Amino acid sequence: MAIENKELIRIGENAVKAKYAAAALGTELKNKILRECAGELVACKGELLSANALDIKKAEEAGMNPGLIDRLRLSPERIEGIAEGIRQVADLPDYIGEVIEETTRPNGLNIKKVRVPLGVVGIIFESRPNVTADAFSLTFKSGNAVILKGGSDALRSNMAIVGALRSVCEENGVDPNVVQLIEHTDRAVTKEFMKMKEYVDVLIPRGSARLIKSVTEEALIPVIETGSGNCHVYVDKEADLDMATDIIFNAKTQRISVCNACESLIVHSAIKDEFLPVLKKRLDEKNVELRADERSFEALGGEAVKATEEDFGTEYLDYILSIKTVDSVEEAIEHINKYNTGHSEAIITKDESTAEKFLNGVDAACVYVNASTRFTDGFEFGFGAEIGISTQMLHARGPMGLRELTSYKYKVYGDGQVRQ
Amino acid sequence: MAIENKELIRIGENAVKAKYAAAALGTELKNKILRECAGELVACKGELLSANALDIKKAEEAGMNPGLIDRLRLSPERIEGIAEGIRQVADLPDYIGEVIEETTRPNGLNIKKVRVPLGVVGIIFESRPNVTADAFSLTFKSGNAVILKGGSDALRSNMAIVGALRSVCEENGVDPNVVQLIEHTDRAVTKEFMKMKEYVDVLIPRGSARLIKSVTEEALIPVIETGSGNCHVYVDKEADLDMATDIIFNAKTQRISVCNACESLIVHSAIKDEFLPVLKKRLDEKNVELRADERSFEALGGEAVKATEEDFGTEYLDYILSIKTVDSVEEAIEHINKYNTGHSEAIITKDESTAEKFLNGVDAACVYVNASTRFTDGFEFGFGAEIGISTQMLHARGPMGLRELTSYKYKVYGDGQVRQ
Repeated sequence: MAIENKELIRIGENAVKAKYAAAALGTELKNKILRECAGELVACKGELLSANALDIKKAEEAGMNPGLIDRLRLSPERIEGIAEGIRQVADLPDYIGEVIEETTRPNGLNIKKVRVPLGVVGIIFESRPNVTADAFSLTFKSGNAVILKGGSDALRSNMAIVGALRSVCEENGVDPNVVQLIEHTDRAVTKEFMKMKEYVDVLIPRGSARLIKSVTEEALIPVIETGSGNCHVYVDKEADLDMATDIIFNAKTQRISVCNACESLIVHSAIKDEFLPVLKKRLDEKNVELRADERSFEALGGEAVKATEEDFGTEYLDYILSIKTVDSVEEAIEHINKYNTGHSEAIITKDESTAEKFLNGVDAACVYVNASTRFTDGFEFGFGAEIGISTQMLHARGPMGLRELTSYKYKVYGDGQVRQ
Repeated sequence: MAIENKELIRIGENAVKAKYAAAALGTELKNKILRECAGELVACKGELLSANALDIKKAEEAGMNPGLIDRLRLSPERIEGIAEGIRQVADLPDYIGEVIEETTRPNGLNIKKVRVPLGVVGIIFESRPNVTADAFSLTFKSGNAVILKGGSDALRSNMAIVGALRSVCEENGVDPNVVQLIEHTDRAVTKEFMKMKEYVDVLIPRGSARLIKSVTEEALIPVIETGSGNCHVYVDKEADLDMATDIIFNAKTQRISVCNACESLIVHSAIKDEFLPVLKKRLDEKNVELRADERSFEALGGEAVKATEEDFGTEYLDYILSIKTVDSVEEAIEHINKYNTGHSEAIITKDESTAEKFLNGVDAACVYVNASTRFTDGFEFGFGAEIGISTQMLHARGPMGLRELTSYKYKVYGDGQVRQ
């Protein structure tokens, strides 16, 4: 599967060279560069805004929808926010070189398991210029080189941001190819990029479920799947119903467009008649549409939409909540394991043994008892900024912070040992 | 990318159901079952040998080469060996449920990072019936369900082995679908199996470089790449040359067919004239063919084959050693990073700072100073049996024992927390 695009090959070769340079950088220099990058983005605000204005103009002319245009737009405040994000990464610990484990074998071999960068990280994302700086700060701090392929609609903005980052690296005597941007807008080039296994160690798609699906299906590079979250809250028969109401209100409505928002309520049949009308009243404050199965529809006195099978598999990212009635925690677990995306799931119960059954039985990165699913987030977990929420089993699960952007190697110290 | 083969779908659905059962099994029951499996394989030795005899007969008729037939063959001793391997896995620790980390956040949320199985593991391997039992014991002990696709030439042997394992599970009230064998011999079915992302969490190919390459190129399921090892030993100008001779002799000749055998020698120009003739004398004991670059060819007084560029990228798995001369440790590192497969690399030197430069600069799972590359092995590292040596950056690197066949989940305990 040879790569034919010469520009991609050049980028790949540059990245491989830069990854060795990046891996060897000391913490102080990395932090200095990150802080200067933050300063540089603010200092060249004018250029970034001009570049962004061209992107916005083109997008408006092409009839892009206002929500997407909003994500594409930079402003002085947003640039300050991006810079602040980079400074926060500078303040986080540097995990590279950490001795994770050490053992000395009976034959005298001393084996150290040492944290190292992943190498070259590829990031494919949509037209959100803030991701460009985010992705750089996290991959750079964790000693990796990064190749960015952002949405074509943000190309000029991304070129301006990456240009600023590279100039700071260069001024500090660091190979600027620690961050490279693929400037092609041709889909065929993106497809070829995903096959650059020889140069890229891991590919992280950031964005819609559709983007992620296409990357996992087409990439030859190992992919970390992030993002899509069909998250459930299960209200057990032993639940504190006031707590349940507060948590569901929070998980559903605090921010509807995020992957850790609650999309589906599972309710125990023993409390549905008491609970659902109260919950509905609370959710009415935000005009949440309820899509209820037969039994919860009745409990709501018919004040709901009837749910179809499809509802239970849908990540709405909207003011909509599906409702499923069950007769036991086991049934709740089975329903979740059938429909969830491995992201975040919660149970509300006062019964510890039921809680433990749920925590063990539900297959997801993060499983909560008596708390909102909205906490699945790098900052909330104490990791700081993250590159995404992994929903796969391999490598890392849940919030992917700096530590999850690393691998390890074994350093083995001998004094002449040979194998018998 | 819908799966169409009904038999595969049935196997996939069975495996998903079995993975929840497997994840919940206690350590004692798992160990009891493993020991009974070992006993059962020995007890039904006769049946296994008959089944195997049919495979061997067919293979001989088809003109299979003697080396491959040897790998396919079972004998009473080999069955004893397989059983002993299973018992050893029973004796290893059970990592499932281990709390890897725990933290309590300022808002009172208690977050536990807990070790869990990967889920459904798919293993694609060649016609080696011992791998069948190996793969089962490791995946079962680590709480996973496994789907095996072995080489077609071993089908009857594999069916007999898997039948015995399943019967022991069943007798113990455990879902026998914790181990399933794909009995199709059709390549198209294998290709479809590799796309069963909906059912299988991770795919581990075991076997030749060709097999692994085809799996990484065709699979949609996340793959762990194992195996191929183009391993180097670098003899520095500050090396103890006697030690270097012993280590290279061991790494090259102790077992030529394995992935951690040395395939290439890198020698510092300052010591080549003294060292190479002595080394050649030692390697002559095993008739090792030397393929030397220009300068080492001279140092050997022409008693070698001239190396081509291709030699440096070749994993010989034979009594052949390529030789490259360099003028510095930096040049050695660069050469290794260009040609190696990320497996095992060694430096022989008395200079600690040179050693550290090498350990840090060489990109491989296991990097040795003053020891043979042959130690890259689960038992030698103290992990016990392993499913293979990972040569990729994601998830696990180096020997993949029981712990590397796990993932983790976050269990989060709250008392009503909602996100602000």
